[in-house]
Amino acid sequence: MTAAFPDLLSRGDGRFAIDIAPALAVGPPGHAYLFGGACLALALEAAAETVQRPVVQGALQFVSFTPLGARLELTVDILQAGRTLVQAQVSGRVDNRLVLSAGVTLGERSGFAEQQWLDAPLVPAPDQCLPSARLPRQDDNAHFLDTMEVRELPEDCLPAGRARFWLRRKATGPIDMASLALFADFIPVALGRMSGRPGGGNSIDNSLRMVRSAAPGWCLADITIAAAASGFAQGRVELWSEQGVLLATGGQTLLFNPG
Amino acid sequence: MTAAFPDLLSRGDGRFAIDIAPALAVGPPGHAYLFGGACLALALEAAAETVQRPVVQGALQFVSFTPLGARLELTVDILQAGRTLVQAQVSGRVDNRLVLSAGVTLGERSGFAEQQWLDAPLVPAPDQCLPSARLPRQDDNAHFLDTMEVRELPEDCLPAGRARFWLRRKATGPIDMASLALFADFIPVALGRMSGRPGGGNSIDNSLRMVRSAAPGWCLADITIAAAASGFAQGRVELWSEQGVLLATGGQTLLFNPG
Ligand SMILES: [Ca+2]
Ligand SMILES: [Ca+2]
Repeated sequence: MTAAFPDLLSRGDGRFAIDIAPALAVGPPGHAYLFGGACLALALEAAAETVQRPVVQGALQFVSFTPLGARLELTVDILQAGRTLVQAQVSGRVDNRLVLSAGVTLGERSGFAEQQWLDAPLVPAPDQCLPSARLPRQDDNAHFLDTMEVRELPEDCLPAGRARFWLRRKATGPIDMASLALFADFIPVALGRMSGRPGGGNSIDNSLRMVRSAAPGWCLADITIAAAASGFAQGRVELWSEQGVLLATGGQTLLFNPG
Repeated sequence: MTAAFPDLLSRGDGRFAIDIAPALAVGPPGHAYLFGGACLALALEAAAETVQRPVVQGALQFVSFTPLGARLELTVDILQAGRTLVQAQVSGRVDNRLVLSAGVTLGERSGFAEQQWLDAPLVPAPDQCLPSARLPRQDDNAHFLDTMEVRELPEDCLPAGRARFWLRRKATGPIDMASLALFADFIPVALGRMSGRPGGGNSIDNSLRMVRSAAPGWCLADITIAAAASGFAQGRVELWSEQGVLLATGGQTLLFNPG
């Protein structure tokens, strides 16, 4: 178990297992599966737990869906372990079938000041924004979205391709790496605003670049869908604290079916 | 061989080899090695050649340097091959030692119009910009930067953390996927502008999300260094044609030593 995932069982030697419960599942009626952002969060947690250093960046390819109720087995392989950083690879399997593969960098260097060049967008505070009533309809047993608070930001002043959400997990706790990996996978919801399809599109991969975690509070997901070609869309997200501190950036490619 | 890399030898079965020549090497005096963007370009080319479909996205972890003169051996493993897309993994070895690992998605779906939401920045044309005189000093046998034309864009109007370059390969040819992978690795040069160290910082990974290739011409690299913490910096790049078409986006994490 880890603080972020009490159900993640460690079996030693970089091996982990978790049974996928409704609280981690999304999907339309009839098709409930492990939320993509939770796949990344679990892979990063397994790597951090094995290496005992914080995650710097990670990129995950989805090979197959992990159904609700399945047991996901994660294996962490160390590609290189140096004084400054560790390069690791995480494989996820269900019934011995590969469902995900991730490359993860871990490390921490002391004596370096934090620097932030990007500025947070000026937006209304969370308590001035309404809970979203536009999230995609979910399977009766897929409850991940029920564990989240999602507030809508006004769209009128936003450039094309942009969507913003205030996000918070109902279970109080710091905005840790796992939370940021979950929040980064709201890119498909933003794509849904562009395509007119609530689900947006299926993620092909999920990536996260960590800056820092933060105290409990809301997190602003500022999402940009840059372009689409050949039926694939390219999106990115910046994740901000309420105080305007950049916590992480993320990106993903999606199967895009315009509405 | 491929159009982008005539020296890349295919040995069948997803196996490739290339001897690292000076034209692909960078590095300060005494330390010439394969340019990071060329590592990604070669890994993506090997995947595309094996699968015979275009690259949609790829993310590469650097495990070790590939020295000038070394023979880099690449192996492409197919994780999943479906009708719509292929998930592949590419491993690179020198003398049987792992030097890089990449996850790559390939695919092409017909019948989908291109859409672009992001707007190209308004900048002076390449012929109004001066060749860069600020590139990091190179080893006598590291000639990658000699194969490139790099023009400086004025910095006065740019927000903090931003740097822009017009880039072109001296060898004429389309702005193909390999070129875009090379151009995406100018993020370290941009970081050098923030840190005061010409080399900027060592890349930990390189990622590329493809939109499309373009006819021969200049490519604008619009680079943002978002933040740095724990001695790691997070950067991204948008790559634009002269006509304002988004060709690709990229990102990387760097070891950051403020100057
Ligand atoms: Ca997803
Ligand atoms: Ca590099």
